[in-house]
Amino acid sequence: MPLGEFDLIERYFTRASTRKDVLLGVGDDAAVLEVPADRALVAATDTLVEGRHFLADAPAESVGHQALAVNLSDLAAMGAEPAWALLSLSLPAADETWLRGFCAGLYGLAERHGVALVGGDTVRGPRVISVTALGFVDGSKALRRSGARAGDLLYVSGWPGEAAAGLEALRGGAGRDAPDPLVRRYLYAEPRVALGRALQGRASAAMDVSDGLLGDLGKLCAASGVGARLDLERLPVSAELLRRHATAERERFVLFGGDDYELLFTLPAAEAKRLEAAWSGAPPVHCIGEIEGGGGVRCTRNGIPASVTGGGYDHFA
Amino acid sequence: MPLGEFDLIERYFTRASTRKDVLLGVGDDAAVLEVPADRALVAATDTLVEGRHFLADAPAESVGHQALAVNLSDLAAMGAEPAWALLSLSLPAADETWLRGFCAGLYGLAERHGVALVGGDTVRGPRVISVTALGFVDGSKALRRSGARAGDLLYVSGWPGEAAAGLEALRGGAGRDAPDPLVRRYLYAEPRVALGRALQGRASAAMDVSDGLLGDLGKLCAASGVGARLDLERLPVSAELLRRHATAERERFVLFGGDDYELLFTLPAAEAKRLEAAWSGAPPVHCIGEIEGGGGVRCTRNGIPASVTGGGYDHFA
Repeated sequence: MPLGEFDLIERYFTRASTRKDVLLGVGDDAAVLEVPADRALVAATDTLVEGRHFLADAPAESVGHQALAVNLSDLAAMGAEPAWALLSLSLPAADETWLRGFCAGLYGLAERHGVALVGGDTVRGPRVISVTALGFVDGSKALRRSGARAGDLLYVSGWPGEAAAGLEALRGGAGRDAPDPLVRRYLYAEPRVALGRALQGRASAAMDVSDGLLGDLGKLCAASGVGARLDLERLPVSAELLRRHATAERERFVLFGGDDYELLFTLPAAEAKRLEAAWSGAPPVHCIGEIEGGGGVRCTRNGIPASVTGGGYDHFA
Repeated sequence: MPLGEFDLIERYFTRASTRKDVLLGVGDDAAVLEVPADRALVAATDTLVEGRHFLADAPAESVGHQALAVNLSDLAAMGAEPAWALLSLSLPAADETWLRGFCAGLYGLAERHGVALVGGDTVRGPRVISVTALGFVDGSKALRRSGARAGDLLYVSGWPGEAAAGLEALRGGAGRDAPDPLVRRYLYAEPRVALGRALQGRASAAMDVSDGLLGDLGKLCAASGVGARLDLERLPVSAELLRRHATAERERFVLFGGDDYELLFTLPAAEAKRLEAAWSGAPPVHCIGEIEGGGGVRCTRNGIPASVTGGGYDHFA
């Protein structure tokens, strides 16, 4: 019976939370939550559609991880501390094996970041998953896209492009039986929450790389009303990418791949020194260029203007 | 080009808000919002799937209205004041006529309740719409399902069953050309936000009627650990239901129909007198029974035990 079946699904999402700021969690008409008096609330929502944002045969655990991770990455990009999440889950049927995996991925990530699932909705339909993540930030220190100024240094965290390379490897049949580090990076990328919080009050602008570094840098520049010089020779290339891909291919992954949840941010020079001294190094942060007056992004290679092609790299197109 | 097309969609949802508590709205990685220091945050999320929660040929304006209304109804059931909403919109294509209608319905309802759309996500996929609504409540006065006590009087607001009758009429071909008040009630039911707020500090328990009055009363009783006597002869029957439907059919709509966003609530006798004196009367509130010890719901008709059938009335089954 459909209703009973979906009642069952709901029961997967009623784990009690240990957060004291959850006055009322899953099970009533809405959740009641306590926001600290001196903090602003940060809210983001993102949707994953089967066949577009995850493969139809993706491990359920990875789908659960990604559904929350993409939202925690948005919070990280604001410098926020994640607190709560709400889940809307549309599924064609109550497949308990799939649900157990999905929960393992979702709750695993939630617990690592102290996030409580406080509400949601489960319905029958095509496989579409929306998560809303809520967190806190000192309102005046929230990281926006719009604060970059000429002279600021441009940074990216970690190893952008690994996830895109992982997806390509996965589609070629890799990682289904044996573990493949790039495939794992695609399936279980970690949102950069700690780094985002460390950037509070330091970075002049920040965003997460979701549509590819080059395109997202263009958005940051447009929001800030500035331009940027991107030094291609300084792009971080992970050991795994270096080992497995030729130069042009690597650069394509780094510039146009998304789904790594890396942060793209700008720092005034003095703050850059302080951050590099203070930051633990995981993930590493890489200076890859500089903000300029004018508008748009210009790429250079060892100081010489360079053009890059391959834009609009869309792995699900 | 798909990406450009979806950029276009996003532009439909960037209307500036006049709410001063929106520190940062649509357009960054996340919204930044200011919750009043002495209030708790209330959060609800609900999903509509085409063909399950709205008909494939439903007016887009109605879909936009319903996507927000179902969430505002959850907030109303907590006694909360709605403030902000986030939208996740999955659509097979960027149909601008449909989008204009959807926005008219969504923003029309949002503006009537002072709600700002502060974020969202638009993706290509099956037509699935998730909204997260956020609001405030005095934490200690939030209306829960679990506070009903033996001796409390049982109330329902407005005219439950009209929406279900409207859906049935719509499926029979009514209301497509000429306006039909029942069809309109189904397509544009109003969440009972003002009533919910008036119940704060008065009602011992409350929830919104989404799966039908009888079934939802069972949930309220279970959450409160009580039973209830439901007096069938006191069920409110609207003039329109009375005029168009026979007795048994009317009762089936009232007991098992959902989608009216009416509130089901319990009041200690002294509070009931105060509410009836203070409440303006729109929507009217109807006393339909009493909370008892024990468990479960028993129906009576003029004091005589009565059985009702027709449970699990699911209009999209």
